[in-house]
Amino acid sequence: MYPVITISREFGSGGHSIGEKVAAKLQIPFYDGEIVTRVATESGYAKELIEDQGEYSSSANKWFDISAASAMYFQSPQDEIFIAQKKVILEYAAQGPCVIVGRCADYILRKADVKCLNVFIHSDMKHRRERVLARYGEIKDVGIEKRLAKKDKQRHTYYKYYTDQTWGNFRNYDMSLDSGTLGEDGCVHLICTTYEMMK
Amino acid sequence: MYPVITISREFGSGGHSIGEKVAAKLQIPFYDGEIVTRVATESGYAKELIEDQGEYSSSANKWFDISAASAMYFQSPQDEIFIAQKKVILEYAAQGPCVIVGRCADYILRKADVKCLNVFIHSDMKHRRERVLARYGEIKDVGIEKRLAKKDKQRHTYYKYYTDQTWGNFRNYDMSLDSGTLGEDGCVHLICTTYEMMK
Repeated sequence: MYPVITISREFGSGGHSIGEKVAAKLQIPFYDGEIVTRVATESGYAKELIEDQGEYSSSANKWFDISAASAMYFQSPQDEIFIAQKKVILEYAAQGPCVIVGRCADYILRKADVKCLNVFIHSDMKHRRERVLARYGEIKDVGIEKRLAKKDKQRHTYYKYYTDQTWGNFRNYDMSLDSGTLGEDGCVHLICTTYEMMK
Repeated sequence: MYPVITISREFGSGGHSIGEKVAAKLQIPFYDGEIVTRVATESGYAKELIEDQGEYSSSANKWFDISAASAMYFQSPQDEIFIAQKKVILEYAAQGPCVIVGRCADYILRKADVKCLNVFIHSDMKHRRERVLARYGEIKDVGIEKRLAKKDKQRHTYYKYYTDQTWGNFRNYDMSLDSGTLGEDGCVHLICTTYEMMK
């Protein structure tokens, strides 16, 4: 049985694009933006809010300001979005092999005992800067490196909050690949090779 | 130009055996125990001491007990062994593609600007326990899991002391592979595939 491929990635590492190419090569569904659309329909929240709150903590330490007692009774929009995303991810995975990008899918599917190939894509700052520059242009207000560091911190905090695990820690992934040194196509080739090995 | 392959690994993850198979498949030299022999000849230290002190801090927090001032003037046997190992590793790497296991080779060669494929091999406790049990038999005094945790901590501290980097952190490696889920032969295949990609 082929696994579901989950791709966690640093912002600007090309993880989205790698996932898309892997899915095309293996002829299996690719889920990233589509999750946002489905969650928007089911939860009633705006797509922009889901994109913003569905992978990033709003502020790096927001959650630690909520006392344990109030957190027990308080369900934030972010919590509702997480629950809706989880439902959608489990539904997609139940339909068979596919590629799912981000959104703690590795953790959600591990807990549900779904056979997965969990991949983490990372890259050095130089390659990430080039990729972000090519895609979004110069970020003038704060600069690219500060923006990347902030995004990493927000994903890290989001993952920690919902999984109690450390984002990027090797224990959570079957393979972690450096897209800067191995190249996007190299990563695609290695993921597809591993997928075939795991059937 | 083909890269030098460095393999860092958790104790019991099969990293040594994977490195050996990779070297045999690619028909390039494999350096692990041989480094110990060379360092013993050149430094005059006993092989047993080099094996023990060449990758592990003697105690997890020994180094933090040495004040910064005394550390500047104090060269321990471990420091001398590190320096001798570094020299041997640089010599081997200068001779062409090879596989080098452990001993901060990834860091040493990065600093020397040698083209490398840096691999980290890890595995879950269940697979590591099985592997250690098959190789060394039951460890009765402390139990296998405690022994594994201690070895990890000692390698972590050793790496931190000599490189100021975090052992196992994805930033230090081109690829990190789980030998428990991918299998030893799977890891061998992926490393050889990447080696061919990087030439």
